[in-house]
Amino acid sequence: MNIVDPNLRADDGARVTLGALLGVGLGPGDPELMTLKAARLVSEAKVVAYFSKRGKPSHARAIAARFIAKDCEEIALAYPLTTEIPFDHPDYVAALAAFYEESAERLALHLSLGRDVALLCEGDPMLYGSFMHLQTRLSSRFRVEVCAGVSGMSGCFASARQPMTWGDDVLTVIPATLPREILAQRLAATDAAVVMKLGGNLGKLRRALEDAELIERAIYVERGTMAEEKIMRLAEKRDDDAPYFALVLVPGAGRRP
Amino acid sequence: MNIVDPNLRADDGARVTLGALLGVGLGPGDPELMTLKAARLVSEAKVVAYFSKRGKPSHARAIAARFIAKDCEEIALAYPLTTEIPFDHPDYVAALAAFYEESAERLALHLSLGRDVALLCEGDPMLYGSFMHLQTRLSSRFRVEVCAGVSGMSGCFASARQPMTWGDDVLTVIPATLPREILAQRLAATDAAVVMKLGGNLGKLRRALEDAELIERAIYVERGTMAEEKIMRLAEKRDDDAPYFALVLVPGAGRRP
Repeated sequence: MNIVDPNLRADDGARVTLGALLGVGLGPGDPELMTLKAARLVSEAKVVAYFSKRGKPSHARAIAARFIAKDCEEIALAYPLTTEIPFDHPDYVAALAAFYEESAERLALHLSLGRDVALLCEGDPMLYGSFMHLQTRLSSRFRVEVCAGVSGMSGCFASARQPMTWGDDVLTVIPATLPREILAQRLAATDAAVVMKLGGNLGKLRRALEDAELIERAIYVERGTMAEEKIMRLAEKRDDDAPYFALVLVPGAGRRP
Repeated sequence: MNIVDPNLRADDGARVTLGALLGVGLGPGDPELMTLKAARLVSEAKVVAYFSKRGKPSHARAIAARFIAKDCEEIALAYPLTTEIPFDHPDYVAALAAFYEESAERLALHLSLGRDVALLCEGDPMLYGSFMHLQTRLSSRFRVEVCAGVSGMSGCFASARQPMTWGDDVLTVIPATLPREILAQRLAATDAAVVMKLGGNLGKLRRALEDAELIERAIYVERGTMAEEKIMRLAEKRDDDAPYFALVLVPGAGRRP
């Protein structure tokens, strides 16, 4: 189903068919964990877009690089801020909102002219994905399609060869940005857990795992599925330095016939 | 790193290198959502194994079919029981345990002779996966590797174009096999939820969602990413019939700059 914008007409007077926004999940980092569909969508794309930290190369672009056509137009969306500023600070929220508005309009320009735009997404686009902020701003005007990707956490379970949920186990996915008391409560109340968004929160998370008496079961995974991957028991990790995308896994121990 | 079994010797007197067990995630059902790595591992496999319901074709084999080599040896592992017998019945547990033991030994026969075995897994091998029951029985004797796949739930988020977690949202993955009261408590206590293993549990889940005042937000996804896919608001679904692998999504509503 194509959406036709009656206000736009091509030179020959025919109505212009609008382009579609494609959210393309690229998986956890190893380019070979891209799906066949993602490889096809990127190969076919005439316009790709990707997020990056300001002044840094885009991780998403690096994962998909070998499938981007030479004559493909590229739209780099560089975040105005780092993740180290408090999320709830009004300046942060305002700057991010303006950035997402501007990014959406940059994509809308192409979509209005009938060009599909493939937005390259690390991991799974629908789990804490930057893509979602553009989807909500564009979905009333343009068709949106989403290609699922292997999530960062799935890549980490696999690299750690760590079964996560058995039988009736409940799995809770928890951002480490939450306060220590909430983290400890969430961890104590679940069978299995994945804690995301570590960065500067690892020390706090470590204390929350101790509060919940789970520190011995916790596994730290940094750059899962990539060449510089590190996997270790958190109790054996000597410092609290962690990249933002590192994870902690607490595997379930449920029913095992 | 290969594990060498000192008890085994090839004809020339050299020690035999044992095979590796490869858990290969195939994604949620659309064959194009296989990863490039899964396609390669299946293509290269000289022995593949897969689970199925007794008397039914294997879903996992169907997803990977076009990559299985003509001369590849195939090991079909047919479950002795259906999922409709109560999980906690002692006969069920005993029959399943015997089935997993026997299946593990069938694979061990090949692994002992130095042949890698690719076990084909629907979705993500580490989330409620049958693979895990063979991994635990074989990992002390043989090398195990796991190739992450797109999880069933990721396929369903994408097909429903449904952003699931924003900002600090907590996501809870809940088996619908749990009692109504527990389901309602878990649902009420989270920002976003995925409820798995529906089958005969959909009526109970519907009441639990009503208890938690979440029925209006719930989205039902059946055969996500496949040709017969159905996506609808659960409140608009007229019956409580659902396949075992159908899901209910309750999207999060967290921070959105």
